[in-house]
Amino acid sequence: MTQSAQQMFDLHREILDQAVDAISSRSFWTPYPESMRKYPEDEVKAAPTKFDSLLNQPFTLNGVGNSQQVGGEVSPYGFELGITYDQPDTKATIAAMQVAMRDWRDAGVEARVGVCLEILARLNAMSPEIAQAVMHTSGQGPMMAFQAGGPHAQDRGLEAVAYAWQAMTQIPASAQWVKPQGKHDPLVMDKRFHIVPRGISLVVACSTFPTWNTYPGLFASLVTGNPVILKPHPGAILPVAMTTRVAQEVIEEAGFDPSLVSLVPDTADAPLTKELALDPAVKLIDFTGSNVFGDWLIQNAKQAQVFAEKAGINTIIIDSVDSLKSVTANLAFSLSLYSGQMCTTPQAIYVPKSGIETSDGHLGFDDVAAALAKAVQAFLSDNDRACTVLGALHSMETQARIDECRGLGEIVLDSEPREHTQFPQARIHTPLILKVDAAQKAAYSEERFGPISFIIATENTAHSIELASDVIREKGAITLGAYATDEAVVDQFEQLAIEVATPLSLNLDGGIFVNQSAAFSDFHATGGNPAANASLCNQAFASSRFLVVQSRRHAQPD
Amino acid sequence: MTQSAQQMFDLHREILDQAVDAISSRSFWTPYPESMRKYPEDEVKAAPTKFDSLLNQPFTLNGVGNSQQVGGEVSPYGFELGITYDQPDTKATIAAMQVAMRDWRDAGVEARVGVCLEILARLNAMSPEIAQAVMHTSGQGPMMAFQAGGPHAQDRGLEAVAYAWQAMTQIPASAQWVKPQGKHDPLVMDKRFHIVPRGISLVVACSTFPTWNTYPGLFASLVTGNPVILKPHPGAILPVAMTTRVAQEVIEEAGFDPSLVSLVPDTADAPLTKELALDPAVKLIDFTGSNVFGDWLIQNAKQAQVFAEKAGINTIIIDSVDSLKSVTANLAFSLSLYSGQMCTTPQAIYVPKSGIETSDGHLGFDDVAAALAKAVQAFLSDNDRACTVLGALHSMETQARIDECRGLGEIVLDSEPREHTQFPQARIHTPLILKVDAAQKAAYSEERFGPISFIIATENTAHSIELASDVIREKGAITLGAYATDEAVVDQFEQLAIEVATPLSLNLDGGIFVNQSAAFSDFHATGGNPAANASLCNQAFASSRFLVVQSRRHAQPD
Repeated sequence: MTQSAQQMFDLHREILDQAVDAISSRSFWTPYPESMRKYPEDEVKAAPTKFDSLLNQPFTLNGVGNSQQVGGEVSPYGFELGITYDQPDTKATIAAMQVAMRDWRDAGVEARVGVCLEILARLNAMSPEIAQAVMHTSGQGPMMAFQAGGPHAQDRGLEAVAYAWQAMTQIPASAQWVKPQGKHDPLVMDKRFHIVPRGISLVVACSTFPTWNTYPGLFASLVTGNPVILKPHPGAILPVAMTTRVAQEVIEEAGFDPSLVSLVPDTADAPLTKELALDPAVKLIDFTGSNVFGDWLIQNAKQAQVFAEKAGINTIIIDSVDSLKSVTANLAFSLSLYSGQMCTTPQAIYVPKSGIETSDGHLGFDDVAAALAKAVQAFLSDNDRACTVLGALHSMETQARIDECRGLGEIVLDSEPREHTQFPQARIHTPLILKVDAAQKAAYSEERFGPISFIIATENTAHSIELASDVIREKGAITLGAYATDEAVVDQFEQLAIEVATPLSLNLDGGIFVNQSAAFSDFHATGGNPAANASLCNQAFASSRFLVVQSRRHAQPD
Repeated sequence: MTQSAQQMFDLHREILDQAVDAISSRSFWTPYPESMRKYPEDEVKAAPTKFDSLLNQPFTLNGVGNSQQVGGEVSPYGFELGITYDQPDTKATIAAMQVAMRDWRDAGVEARVGVCLEILARLNAMSPEIAQAVMHTSGQGPMMAFQAGGPHAQDRGLEAVAYAWQAMTQIPASAQWVKPQGKHDPLVMDKRFHIVPRGISLVVACSTFPTWNTYPGLFASLVTGNPVILKPHPGAILPVAMTTRVAQEVIEEAGFDPSLVSLVPDTADAPLTKELALDPAVKLIDFTGSNVFGDWLIQNAKQAQVFAEKAGINTIIIDSVDSLKSVTANLAFSLSLYSGQMCTTPQAIYVPKSGIETSDGHLGFDDVAAALAKAVQAFLSDNDRACTVLGALHSMETQARIDECRGLGEIVLDSEPREHTQFPQARIHTPLILKVDAAQKAAYSEERFGPISFIIATENTAHSIELASDVIREKGAITLGAYATDEAVVDQFEQLAIEVATPLSLNLDGGIFVNQSAAFSDFHATGGNPAANASLCNQAFASSRFLVVQSRRHAQPD
């Protein structure tokens, strides 16, 4: 191990131990504060200026030759970033990474963990700046871009490192094996066990959470010895490029080849992901994105292990509530946050057509629908707050989808555009809420990405559960929220969650939201329904990324 | 948990803890003695009679209706078993197993572990009887059938249980998550975490090691909550059927549905494996067998996770030795054991054409080849011992292959038939050893299953390493043995092992053989070359078989 890698490991050892404790206890913990006030005020204030200074010029990284320039990011807040990036030759990049892999592999577990934790620490310090890049590529609001793009993403990276550390250190470096032979001398074998990476790891980043969804695969692969190609979404390159730069700096300081983390950006017109995914050297693929492409990877990239998070029909079932006001306020936030562009945002809300019981008495189906609409309206009544929470729509397609979906049901709350004070060109649209009958399955059982949700009139809660079960089995889901005051019904929800392998949030009516999952405690997706084939993070996510190669020989004289 | 499952868990708790220690320390340990003398003498003596009493009649198991009878096993020792087995309707079987899965899942980790350890304990007690069934289906010799078919197979099952226990208990059943909110009250969430099976597990057993290669998948899947379909090779049903019967008895005693382990035998004329493997309910597949079928499963059974052990070109590289006599004696045993029908038997032996250094001075290539031939001849000179070690050839194809391969090189040692005293019809053949030039790659780089090996004349050790590297990268290997007296060369072998992800045995010249791997200490295959995509057993082998489904809600008042 190089001296600087050792220093990095020693410096972060305590955080590592705490992270390992946290993934076991699954209680609240984080080393990366989510409050912007915990970061130096100067850094926070300087972030927009630093971001501006990156615009309209090339963003340089370490990379092999033959590169051409790509770029073309446009902020959903209405301006062109004008940044260009080197697009290295893919074959040459992979060849260089394969060479670099050896030293990285041979450096050992502590060196790799030290380097990864130092990368995370530096990313954390840069959170205000990364937030700007996340905001102006994904369209997230500034607060969310800071939290989800910075500390929460770093949490997920650290979680992956902790799982990998646990898995790798479970294997001893050496062992002596002494087999008794009755009256004869025992057989004594000296054994060595090497942690060996699988090969090149490809992490395909998405446009909506360019860091949060990227860091688990990046860090799980890198820390287990695999060089990582980061292939950003053409519309959200900058946050991934900034991450790459930090990773390359730390890797180089620690005495390794910076190409161990390489950025390979592409364009919508000339995408490179398929070519990269089918390269025989690529043995691990992490992907977040559409079902079509995720399924393509699983079907075609046979030489690789694919960890895919795709889309699903996130679900809310309402049976009964204490305070409908608290519940609708909670759901209003969930439906509004980042304009429904989270992979965890609810889309299908099942309510019995006969209505529900509340602590204020029985309320009809239309009362529930109206209460939700009213809660969203109230929550978004202050335009500044609305713009901050909604963020901007990442793509024109999402904007168009709102119009396309208006006819799918009866409008409970129409979507309306909003104008951002600072960025008047920003694509900001409030949620569209439709009500439909249970029979209109085609409407609500397709993913309608964006601020679009359906309140579905069912026969009763048993029917809601049945429909949710059918839809999730077929289409998957990453979140399931449910409301009931009767514990017997709560038990039915718990059973449903188990049957459809979807994490359950029960009776959320306060400051916790169904679309948020906390690192070290909440497992994001289960891998057991069509929305994802892996969970972020768990033991399998980390331990599948390395091999153990052993050697054995008769015991050597000391 | 049922009372009897609890009792089973309590009874075997100590063994479980010891097994967990063993997989971490990787030192020698086993609760299942490999010496027949440690088993009751009466049981050992009665085993052949008990085996005879099973012949020429139906072997009954728990199963769903619509069954027809299949059978047709022929002992490689020259007689028909005459046993028939129920072949249940596959759809009905899967449907029944899916229903049974719920109670099994909800019973919890300790109940499932208790049941699995009790199954293993009963299998251990039956080892003498199971050895008879393994011998007369696989063709293994009696000692090997006992050890590999009994205690060593049980070790591998226990190892899988230990890994799964470790993985499952790493997840707490519940947690309280307390997030500070500055001056306000903290957010407090109560969380529950459920271990949820993936679905139906299909374990496709092989003809040569019907228990050893079956128990890891069987126990890893069962203990994590997945019902298991055992699909035996049509030529080696009995050992799997006996295992199924024991499993069903224990499962039923513990209060669960015995169909949780179901035998689905088929015939060579009407195979069922593809149909079973493509069933949407089947989520896990363990397979040992040919590359063609293993690759078919990986390409086609997309709904399932496939753990495949296939074939490879197991390799020996000789650079230099202390005592050539000790080395060739060691290799003679490895080449003879079970007539080379182990997935770990060496096939390609690389030796520099200029010869090697030994403690007796330089020896030419032909000297080395002749010494190996002589060692095999000497080892097999006693016909009784030869028959015991060689066992019988499982299939006519393997017998025919010996003839087909004679022309592939210059014969160093010809294969000859042997006559077994007790079973004169047994298919017993000694090893065929050929010498070839390095350029005759087509000869030695195809798997020649059976007692067929090649001594390959290379330019020098660097050339040997280069050839071995090329062949293993392309075709895979499960074992690599190497000999050198110079530690610098030993280091090159260690690097080769790491690069081609193959376990290395160095300078074996005593009582340890390259084709033997010890549970709890040696990882069998790495999953990192074409011979296998998984390792038996490691964390990934167990932790990929279950999901974690969580629920969370605001903390409830006590």
